[in-house]
Order: sequence, then C-alpha cells, then structure tokens
Amino acid sequence: MTTDLPIASSNALSVRLAARSGALALHTSGLASEHVQGNVVILPEVLAADFMRYCQRNPKPCPLLAVSEPGDPYLPALGADLDIRSDVPRYRIWRNGELVQEPSDIRALWRADLVSFVIGCSFSFEHALLAAGIKLRHIEQGCNVAMYRSSIETAPAGPFHGPMVVSMRPMLPADAIRAVHITSRLPQVHGAPVHLGDPQAIGIVDLNCPDYGDAVDLRRGEIPVFWACGVTPQAAIAQARPAFCITHAPGAMLVTDLLNRDLTN
Amino acid sequence: MTTDLPIASSNALSVRLAARSGALALHTSGLASEHVQGNVVILPEVLAADFMRYCQRNPKPCPLLAVSEPGDPYLPALGADLDIRSDVPRYRIWRNGELVQEPSDIRALWRADLVSFVIGCSFSFEHALLAAGIKLRHIEQGCNVAMYRSSIETAPAGPFHGPMVVSMRPMLPADAIRAVHITSRLPQVHGAPVHLGDPQAIGIVDLNCPDYGDAVDLRRGEIPVFWACGVTPQAAIAQARPAFCITHAPGAMLVTDLLNRDLTN
Repeated sequence: MTTDLPIASSNALSVRLAARSGALALHTSGLASEHVQGNVVILPEVLAADFMRYCQRNPKPCPLLAVSEPGDPYLPALGADLDIRSDVPRYRIWRNGELVQEPSDIRALWRADLVSFVIGCSFSFEHALLAAGIKLRHIEQGCNVAMYRSSIETAPAGPFHGPMVVSMRPMLPADAIRAVHITSRLPQVHGAPVHLGDPQAIGIVDLNCPDYGDAVDLRRGEIPVFWACGVTPQAAIAQARPAFCITHAPGAMLVTDLLNRDLTN
Repeated sequence: MTTDLPIASSNALSVRLAARSGALALHTSGLASEHVQGNVVILPEVLAADFMRYCQRNPKPCPLLAVSEPGDPYLPALGADLDIRSDVPRYRIWRNGELVQEPSDIRALWRADLVSFVIGCSFSFEHALLAAGIKLRHIEQGCNVAMYRSSIETAPAGPFHGPMVVSMRPMLPADAIRAVHITSRLPQVHGAPVHLGDPQAIGIVDLNCPDYGDAVDLRRGEIPVFWACGVTPQAAIAQARPAFCITHAPGAMLVTDLLNRDLTN
C-alpha cells in the first residue's frame, strides 16, 4: 500500500484529520478500508449545473455520492465535520484546463461560488471483490490499476464530453461472472462492468499500454474485465477547459464516513 | 385500466403521438406496458440546480431518468422525437405553489429558461412484480395505489424539502421478500422498499386514510410494504412554492422509449 505515514486505522475521521493537518499528503489506498472513498471535482457554480447533468447522463463513470451547496465547504451527507477545503490529502488546481498547482490545502483558494462534487471510486467495489475472495492483479503486483481511454463516448452535457475511461482487471471467467454479480449491486461505485473480453471492441489497441496507471499481466485463461472509471470526469474537464477547477490528486481520495457495506443495492 | 381511448399498443411512440395530438388526455397506466413511464417536473433554470441536488440527495423517491438542457424541449435520451411540450397527456401549471391550470399541451407556455426533469415511476417495478407472479391489490381492485405522507424527512436542497411520500402494497411475507429482491435491482424506479410492517413506525396513523390515491384491503397474514414514491418531489415543490412550475397531472405520465427490462441493475 502506498501510504506516507502509518495510519493503521479503519477510522475515516482520523484519516481526514491527518489530511487536514497536512500529515497525510499522499495516497489513501488501503486506509479506512471499510469506508467509502470519493473522487472530488470542485467547479464554479456557473458550470455546476452542466457538470451535474453530465454525471446524471453518465452514471457508470460518474456516480454522484454528494453535491455541496454553492460556497459551502461542508458535505454533511458524507461526514459531520467534513471540510472539502482541507480533508483531501492532495489537490490539483486547474486553470483553463492546465494543471498549475498541487497543494495539500485549498482554504486560500476557496470562493463563494464553488460547488463540490464527490463521485464514487473503485476502491469500494474492489473491497467487495476481495471480501469475496477474488484476487486483484494490480494489488498483488503492488501497482495502480490499468486505465484506458475507450472508444465508448460519454453522453455530453454543456461543455463536458469525451471518452469513457475504463479500468481493467484480468480474471478467470468464473471470477468474472461472480464479479459481475457483486458489482451489479454497487451502482454508486461504478456498478457492473461495461465490457469483458476483446479490448479492441471498445477501441483499446494494446493492453500493455494503459493511458493511466500501470500495465498488469494477463495470464492464460484470463479475460480482461472493464469497468467505467472515475477518471472519466477528469477527462471531460480536460476537454471543457474551465477557467478554474479543483480536483483531488490521483490516488489521494476523500475518505468519507459512509461504509462500503451500506452501498449494496 | 383507466384509459380514455383504446390504444392496444406496446408502442411508446404511438402513445406519445396520441398525447401530442390531444387524442389521449388521461391516464397512461397499462399503455405501452413494456416501456418506462416517467414523472415530469419542469422548472425555471434559476431553481434547476437546487432541484437536481434535491433529487441527488433523495434518489429513492426522486430517481432521475433524464434532465434537459435549459430551454430545450427535447429529451433524446428518452426518445428521438420526444417533445416535453406536447407528449405528456395532461399537465399541471403551478404559480407560487397554486395549481392554476390543467392543459393537455404547454407549447404556449414554453420559455427559454425551462429545464425538464423526468423521474422514474412505480409502473416499471409493478411490471416486474406482476411478471414474477406477485399480485397487486390496487390493480385487482381497479383503483390507484395508496400513498401516504410519511414521517421520513427528505434531505433538503435549496428551497426543496418535506416528507417522503410512500406508496403501500399489501403482501404476504413470502411475496414481500421476493418483492425486496426484485425491486432492489431497479434503483432507477424507486428501488427496494423503504419500510415494511408497522405503519406507525414511519408516522402513518391509519392505512385506511391515504393522503393520495385509494385505500386497499389489508388481508389476514399480509403486511404493508412501503416504497418511496414519485409524488415526493411534488410535495417538495408545494413546500418551495416556485413562481412557476409545470408537472404532469397524476397518472398522466410521460411514456418513454426506454424498456423496463433494460432498467435491471
């Protein structure tokens, strides 16, 4: 697990407090593992309705866990104390689609017109797959999951559009069948796979060359299984090039008080 | 079935064309029964973001099937030709929270700032329950489903707040268990029940006095099973009293091209 301090904790609040204090400024994978983690997108109110429609139209890559009131940095649905200005370990600041800064706190950048969106993350369904005894190659290999820009187009809304980004996990067919069953019940964290088998059918030419994350081995008898990925909204934001936008930094997710076990549909 | 003309059709387009021409101006129950029908809410853009947040926070009563672009009367995600100004059999026009008119067409009232919301409807899950051989008392008795304002508060957003309205269907426990299983897989049309058993536990004093719809018999051995209901957003709108709002008239739903069978999670 890629953590930068030894928080041996299943407590979401302690992870948020560590992020808030600046002690935790890297990855959240494996921290508070019973808890739901989220992708974060923060946009000016003028773009918020378009982005919310984009999420509504693309629920598999962009399952909305919560949306803040404009200007309100708190998200009580995800945690009583949760302050989006400080509780993400590391942020990315985007201006006109360019990454300009990676701070660990955005209090100085906060504005009265900002709306926060928290989007479900694959950590939750991976937790369910591992609990069912399904092994995940990228975890065994100690690397990031492999992600690809597919030829599946998302449904556009306002300036937001672009390809669906998918994550891939190699599985034996019997495990793939169980994984479909398990993740179908978790629509708030990407739900059932969007594809399995032939990568070219969704525009992926070479599994060894992921667009994000790390390539993993595909072994004899395994098929690649593809899920809609929470990187998709970041790709849509890169296309839309908003004047100002804040996201979490990859892997440095928002840890919420929600429990993975409560996500089951 | 309460229809005002004999459209013996499973074709969504023919139902919409009948509504568009004015030939169909009443209930859509039982029409195009393979197809998803939707509750309709049309609001000025200034309230649209608040209402969308209200739906996001209350996905069981307000599962969003589609949201239009501001001023755009078409909803291509629900049907290529679908025109929200004419394709609902009967509308309700609300001004400052008061019902002022029930036209069968809103072309003359259309404005460049209106945003349309289509919300899932229990007809779809009833279709799945009937297909599984579960009998529904209100259909047997030829009346509307019984609906109650519960003591469950919805999560507020902007001016929108209020009680969750629930619909109730009496079932034998074995059928209730199967109904939980079946509707859990249909989150876009209210999903799993929100309660079963004691009505008082959710603030319902007398099952014989529903707040909307018709009372039905609860027979020996049956328990009442309660689902979040698509009337909830109308109750929230009644609380918010927007200057201008359009909804469908009760029972006169929007018939979409979506198929019930494709809703299964």
